[in-house]
Amino acid sequence: MDEKLNELKSIIYEISDINKASAVLSWDQETYMPKGSINDRANQLATLSKISHQKFVSKEVGKLIAKAKNDVQKEAPDSDNSRLIKVLDRNYQKSVKVPSKLVLKMAKASSLGQQTWARAREKSDFSLFEPYLKKTVELYREYAMIFKPYDHIYDTLLDDFEPGFKTADVKLIFGKLRTQQIKLIKDIKDKPDIDDSFLFLKYDGQKQWDFGVDVITKFGYDWNRGRQDRSTHPLTIDFGMNDVRITTRINTKYLPTGLFGSMHEAGHAMYEQGIPLNLARTPLGGGASLAIHESQSRMWENLVGRSMPFWKYFYPVLQKTFPNQLANIKLFDFYKGINKVKPSLIRVEADEATYNMHIMLRLEIEIALIEGSIEVKDLPEIWNKKMKEYLGITPENDAEGVLQDIHWSMGAIGYFSTYAIGNLVSAQLWECINSDIPSLSNQIREGDFSELLSWLRKNVHLHGAKFEPQELVQRITGSKITPEPYIKYLNNKYSVIYDL
Amino acid sequence: MDEKLNELKSIIYEISDINKASAVLSWDQETYMPKGSINDRANQLATLSKISHQKFVSKEVGKLIAKAKNDVQKEAPDSDNSRLIKVLDRNYQKSVKVPSKLVLKMAKASSLGQQTWARAREKSDFSLFEPYLKKTVELYREYAMIFKPYDHIYDTLLDDFEPGFKTADVKLIFGKLRTQQIKLIKDIKDKPDIDDSFLFLKYDGQKQWDFGVDVITKFGYDWNRGRQDRSTHPLTIDFGMNDVRITTRINTKYLPTGLFGSMHEAGHAMYEQGIPLNLARTPLGGGASLAIHESQSRMWENLVGRSMPFWKYFYPVLQKTFPNQLANIKLFDFYKGINKVKPSLIRVEADEATYNMHIMLRLEIEIALIEGSIEVKDLPEIWNKKMKEYLGITPENDAEGVLQDIHWSMGAIGYFSTYAIGNLVSAQLWECINSDIPSLSNQIREGDFSELLSWLRKNVHLHGAKFEPQELVQRITGSKITPEPYIKYLNNKYSVIYDL
Repeated sequence: MDEKLNELKSIIYEISDINKASAVLSWDQETYMPKGSINDRANQLATLSKISHQKFVSKEVGKLIAKAKNDVQKEAPDSDNSRLIKVLDRNYQKSVKVPSKLVLKMAKASSLGQQTWARAREKSDFSLFEPYLKKTVELYREYAMIFKPYDHIYDTLLDDFEPGFKTADVKLIFGKLRTQQIKLIKDIKDKPDIDDSFLFLKYDGQKQWDFGVDVITKFGYDWNRGRQDRSTHPLTIDFGMNDVRITTRINTKYLPTGLFGSMHEAGHAMYEQGIPLNLARTPLGGGASLAIHESQSRMWENLVGRSMPFWKYFYPVLQKTFPNQLANIKLFDFYKGINKVKPSLIRVEADEATYNMHIMLRLEIEIALIEGSIEVKDLPEIWNKKMKEYLGITPENDAEGVLQDIHWSMGAIGYFSTYAIGNLVSAQLWECINSDIPSLSNQIREGDFSELLSWLRKNVHLHGAKFEPQELVQRITGSKITPEPYIKYLNNKYSVIYDL
Repeated sequence: MDEKLNELKSIIYEISDINKASAVLSWDQETYMPKGSINDRANQLATLSKISHQKFVSKEVGKLIAKAKNDVQKEAPDSDNSRLIKVLDRNYQKSVKVPSKLVLKMAKASSLGQQTWARAREKSDFSLFEPYLKKTVELYREYAMIFKPYDHIYDTLLDDFEPGFKTADVKLIFGKLRTQQIKLIKDIKDKPDIDDSFLFLKYDGQKQWDFGVDVITKFGYDWNRGRQDRSTHPLTIDFGMNDVRITTRINTKYLPTGLFGSMHEAGHAMYEQGIPLNLARTPLGGGASLAIHESQSRMWENLVGRSMPFWKYFYPVLQKTFPNQLANIKLFDFYKGINKVKPSLIRVEADEATYNMHIMLRLEIEIALIEGSIEVKDLPEIWNKKMKEYLGITPENDAEGVLQDIHWSMGAIGYFSTYAIGNLVSAQLWECINSDIPSLSNQIREGDFSELLSWLRKNVHLHGAKFEPQELVQRITGSKITPEPYIKYLNNKYSVIYDL
């Protein structure tokens, strides 16, 4: 067995190397690449992607996986090898079932879709984008149906981002969440407005950068295995657990952008840096899923970074860094400012109380589109109606409404829910952590995050992608993903801030 | 025919993409990669290199080349297609002849050799490195002998870096050069020393950087298709003609390092930026050879950058940038300072008059080693004797003698001569250019390099790697590579500076 397994692994290692090389090229494209090179870079990425795909879907790999599946039955079901073969088999079966013609069509639709979306958003005219989105939805329905039988046609798409997740799962979770969050938002709306005007003063970019670096260094981000650069869209990208880079965007006229952006990306990055070496160069050598990843980034950004204990420690430093802007702002007023709830049209700028509503809106539309129960042409109307219902506001045009996100145009359907699920998981883990580390608040108040990071390393990071998200959360917390802890967290937090 | 040729080209394009991806990874490693990632990066590069090699030496490529060789006979012998097939065929025949076992042995010897060389140099003890170099020489003799029959066993190694070049060529060229350069160095030695102490003052790093950027921008380096970063070893690296990056090293206690380093690398880079798009993603889409490349870098660095007309324009700017250091230094004294001849032990710091002697010394040793006419164990003695003969000085230890260069340890045998040949070609081209552009000196005195760059674009860059170096120089100048123009250039220049 060992010889065949090693043969399989050596192919998998090479595929991983190719994919990591692609990641380096993508990182470079986002950070330092000169503009003139955009087409050449597209060719290079396309070639690497093609080679990686061809290597994986080869008959040789299929045979080796079949052999290994049989052989690993002798090993413990949770062993690295058993889990690796399980994941490889799942990915392989999915990959080979999809005709390459359809893959090509989807790639083309994505490329055309993104271009058209950008134009449509610029002109704020959904009708320009409509036929392309219609085509995309058709192709994704065709793709999903390959995997019949299923409980729900949307399951396939969800599974691409959250392995093992079912549409029934998200419907259940979001069903509980919806009414609770709407109620919270309405309660807050009746309360006096919070003044956060001091966040919109001029904040020196380099000082912001340095402060952010101090914070994430304290968090435990390992600079010997990473670095931070500037880019238009903040991102985390890894070339293995020994090189996990983040990028950030600084806004000199709005302090939270860079500050919480760095914390968010560092949360993602510390997850990847915590994956054990024995999973390197395999599909297990990364985060368990997008939602689990988001649970880490949102935890460091929000449960830690927007918490009172955190600012007890860091606010004096921040005040010293920006005396002109903050000397007269009291800690609690600062805390209220960075946690202000304000229903807004744009998802990426949303606060913790309203963020999930943006996700639910998109998720419901996505599911209905893939089911075929609504039509693409009706999207602007449906969008605006839900926006009114969930957040009490209405977009003035398509650009700030249905056209705001790039995801559908690029065919990232099944992706949105991961953002909200990540929030839920962050709170669910947080309850466990606080029960395991009763003094956590005090530690954070002292600027000590080491025990928190150790807990995450041991309970989350250590497993890489060995377990599916539901399975992982169950193992750690004793129950599957559930919205209660998050609702409780929000209610507690905003009771204090808004005196509810 | 077209279909088969296109099939071949599409494979060649992909191989080029993979190689360019490797280049991105190497650039990243030299500039921004965190230290912790060194082993992962080695894996990634090894995998890409393996895939690229496998793709090229496949039977499929062999058949397609054979077919194309037959078909392109209908085309003009200088057409892009004819030349592409010629070069592909040459590379293919060379690649497939070498047993993969030997390739592996050479790669291992290179890896071990470099490690041992670093240790040996640190301890300044050649005996540590000796057995590894002996092994390397054996392997390269074995490699060279695969290509029997040849005029000289060293031809194979030379041809790897300078296609078509023969040992007889370099012997002829260097034979003429040797006595002339030795005489020049002796003549200069009898003259009073030049004061260049002002170059060793403290020069602000950022100001040096900005001045260098101004210079190479004026040269015509295209920032839309390139960028400059810092690295320990200055280099030029391209990911296609639309992304040609340079790196530089700034020494705040010695002005020439960064300044001439940037000009040198920009010379390489403008060559790559000038390759026409129709040669992209093929082996023709780069410089003709290392020597031709060096002719471009050395031209911009020395024939332009260390010339009087250049400093007539730039010296006032430099004085304004560094008034404390240079306000009292007259233009001619500055000019003399940057052109001071001082025989030194270290090649990379050598001036124009002595540089080639370092190369000749290495070349003669290399040829003798590969011939088998000298033994590795005798190298330190031979090195020091030649050093005394050519430059009049003797190393005090192995570190500043035979161990100073990394090349042999990594198996770059056949490489050194390209440095000196590049110098010769730069002067040979320079004569042509000045005959075609009689007002060139005046243009440079005005800071106008556009006609010079256009000439290089049209006569050198335009051809990419279509022609072998000797053929290219013959086409441009009417004769093969010859040392006379360089000797004349040196004698003229130093007559003025040293009043010979």
